[in-house]
Amino acid sequence: MSFVEKVRLLDYWKIQDAALQTEFPRSRLVLMVDKRLLVTKDTPEVKLVEHSYDHLKQLLGEYGLQFDLSTSCLLDALPGDNDMIPLFGTSVEAADPPEDSPISKKDVLRQLGNSLGGRFTDIRMAMLTMQEERQRNLLAKFQTLTKWSATYRRCPKCAAALKMRISKSGAECVTCQKVYYPTFSPVSITLIIDPTHENALLVRHRGSAGGVFTAVAGFAHSGESMAECARREIAEEVGIEVESIQSLDMSQPWPMPDSSLMIAHVAVAKMDQKISVCPDELETAQWFSRNQVRQALETTLSDPFLKNLPKTLDDRQTLTYIPPAGAIAHQMIRKWVDGKIDVLHSSRI
Amino acid sequence: MSFVEKVRLLDYWKIQDAALQTEFPRSRLVLMVDKRLLVTKDTPEVKLVEHSYDHLKQLLGEYGLQFDLSTSCLLDALPGDNDMIPLFGTSVEAADPPEDSPISKKDVLRQLGNSLGGRFTDIRMAMLTMQEERQRNLLAKFQTLTKWSATYRRCPKCAAALKMRISKSGAECVTCQKVYYPTFSPVSITLIIDPTHENALLVRHRGSAGGVFTAVAGFAHSGESMAECARREIAEEVGIEVESIQSLDMSQPWPMPDSSLMIAHVAVAKMDQKISVCPDELETAQWFSRNQVRQALETTLSDPFLKNLPKTLDDRQTLTYIPPAGAIAHQMIRKWVDGKIDVLHSSRI
Repeated sequence: MSFVEKVRLLDYWKIQDAALQTEFPRSRLVLMVDKRLLVTKDTPEVKLVEHSYDHLKQLLGEYGLQFDLSTSCLLDALPGDNDMIPLFGTSVEAADPPEDSPISKKDVLRQLGNSLGGRFTDIRMAMLTMQEERQRNLLAKFQTLTKWSATYRRCPKCAAALKMRISKSGAECVTCQKVYYPTFSPVSITLIIDPTHENALLVRHRGSAGGVFTAVAGFAHSGESMAECARREIAEEVGIEVESIQSLDMSQPWPMPDSSLMIAHVAVAKMDQKISVCPDELETAQWFSRNQVRQALETTLSDPFLKNLPKTLDDRQTLTYIPPAGAIAHQMIRKWVDGKIDVLHSSRI
Repeated sequence: MSFVEKVRLLDYWKIQDAALQTEFPRSRLVLMVDKRLLVTKDTPEVKLVEHSYDHLKQLLGEYGLQFDLSTSCLLDALPGDNDMIPLFGTSVEAADPPEDSPISKKDVLRQLGNSLGGRFTDIRMAMLTMQEERQRNLLAKFQTLTKWSATYRRCPKCAAALKMRISKSGAECVTCQKVYYPTFSPVSITLIIDPTHENALLVRHRGSAGGVFTAVAGFAHSGESMAECARREIAEEVGIEVESIQSLDMSQPWPMPDSSLMIAHVAVAKMDQKISVCPDELETAQWFSRNQVRQALETTLSDPFLKNLPKTLDDRQTLTYIPPAGAIAHQMIRKWVDGKIDVLHSSRI
C-alpha cells in the first residue's frame, strides 16, 4: 500500500466510526496502565511494546484489567497479512489491591509488565529517551488524544454532551453540532547565541532536574507569527532583545504538561543588555561557551537517563546536562555544538 | 518603554483583571460591528481605525450601541502621553431597525462607518488586503479572541461555568479550576514544485473565488512534526508523494474559518505520479510554469481586491489570480516566482 493510500485510509478511519469499530478486533495496540507506558526492557533502545488485540485481551484479563473502544485511540495504520490494520493506543487504570494484600500495586504492575514482555515507565522519560522519531511521535499522539478525549466531555459553548469519535480525532456536540478537535498549540523553542556564534544562553527551569540547562520555549499567543512568539518569549523569560531570529527547520510534537508542537529557532542576542530572568519560570539563565556546552552534551550522551543528577543546591546551578536525546532542545544544541547551524546575516525582525 | 518592559506589562495585564479593568477607560479601541471590521476608507492602504474610549462611547451611543469589558479583548500596549495604555478590540451587535424604518440596517452601518471615520468590511477581505503584517496580526488576534471567548462559556470537562479573563487570554472553571486558553492550531502551507524548480502545483479550493489558485494547506494532527503534516496533507489533497520538504521561515496567524498559525514550506514532488485530488476539498490541482504563475501574480497585484473575478464555469478553472498580498500563500508564491527560494539538495524525509 502506497503512502497516499495509507494516508487516505487513516483519514477514512478517523471519521467513520462503524468501519473503525469493525477493525478493532484485528488491531494491534500499545498500552498505558495508570498513565505509565509499556516499553521494552533489557534492549539497547527504548521502544513501544505492541500486542495483538486477542493477546492483550487475554493477558490483561489475567490481571482483571479490561480495555475497549472507549479507552482507545487510533494512532496509525500498519501492514497486516493482506491489508492494513489499525494501531491503537489504549489507556487503562488498575484498581488498588485490597488493603490486606500481601503484594503492593507497584509489584503487580511489575509482574504485569513482565507478562507483557516489557516494563512500565514515566511518559516524559519515554519521550526523552526513545531514539526513533516515529516512536516518540506515536507516544505524543497517544498521550494527547488520551488526555484530550478524557477532558472534552461537554460542549464548551452549550454544555451538552459531546459525542467522541472512536478514533478520538474529534467530538461533536449532540445539541449544537459544533465539532471540536484535539487541542495542541505551537510553541517556539529558541537557541539564543551571541553575535560571535561561539556562546549560547541556556536556562534552568524551576522544578527541572538539577544541573540540566536548555533553550527558551513558550506557547505562541493568538495573533503572533512564530518569529514574534520567539522574540516575545525571549523578552519575557530572560529580559533581552535579539537582533535576528531564524527557523531551524526542525519541529517536534510534545505532549506534556499541555500538548504542543515545538518549532525550533535560533536567535542572535543584542549584547548591550543585562539578563533578567522571569522568576516564576526560571531559576537562572547564563551564557556558556561552546566548549562548556559540548562537555554537558557529552555527559548527557554518556548518561542518557540522567542517573547522576547533582543533589546539592550549588550543583543544581552548574551546567552538567542538557536534555536527553529525545528532546528537540538536545538536537538543536547538538547541531550548534557541532557547528552545523548556518546563521544568516539578514535580520528577520 | 523598552520592548522587554512592554512584553512584561502585557503579560501582567493579561492575567490581572483588576489592573486591566482600571486601564479600560484610558484605552484605545478598534471595532467590529456585526462581525464586520472598521477600517480606513479613501486611503491607499487598508488599516484599522482606532478611537479613544471616550470618543467611541459617544459616537456609538448616538447609534444606540454600547461596548464594555465583556465585548472587548486585549490586543496590544501602545505608548500614551506618559505611560503605556491598552489597545482593545471590541465587537458589538447592531439591532435591526424597526420594520417601518425608512432606512435599512446597511444604510445605518454605512452612516456609522462615516461617523467613525471609516467603513465596515468583511474580515477575510481585510486580512487579504491589509498591507502591514502588524495590522493583519492584530486583526487575527481580535477575531480569534472574540470567537474563542464567545465559544468557551462552560468547562468541557465538568460543564461548570468558565470565568473568562478580561483580556480574553484564558478562562478558568469555577468548579474544577482547570484553565483553558484560546485554541488555534498549526497549519502547514506548502508550495509544491517539480525537481527542475521551474513548475509549481497549485490548487483551487471548492467554494473559493473563481480563477484563484493557491498552495496546499491543512491542520497538523497531534503527533506530527510540521514536515510530516505537510507530507500528509499533500498526499491527502493531491495524491502525490514528495522527495523533500523544507521550511521557508515564514508564518502567519490566520483567524478563519478556524484559528490557525500557518507555517510555510516548500516541497519537491516525485514526478512519477498522477495527481488525484481529494474531491471534498479541491476542485482541481494543476502544474503551472513560472511564467504562468508570474502572469497571475501580476494580475493579482494590479487588481488587489479581485474585482474582475471570472464568472463563467470554464473561466473558474483557469489560473487568473493567486491570493491577494495579505495571504502568506501570496508571499510564498511571489518568492518562488522571483527565484528567491533556495531549495536545499538534502532530503528532509
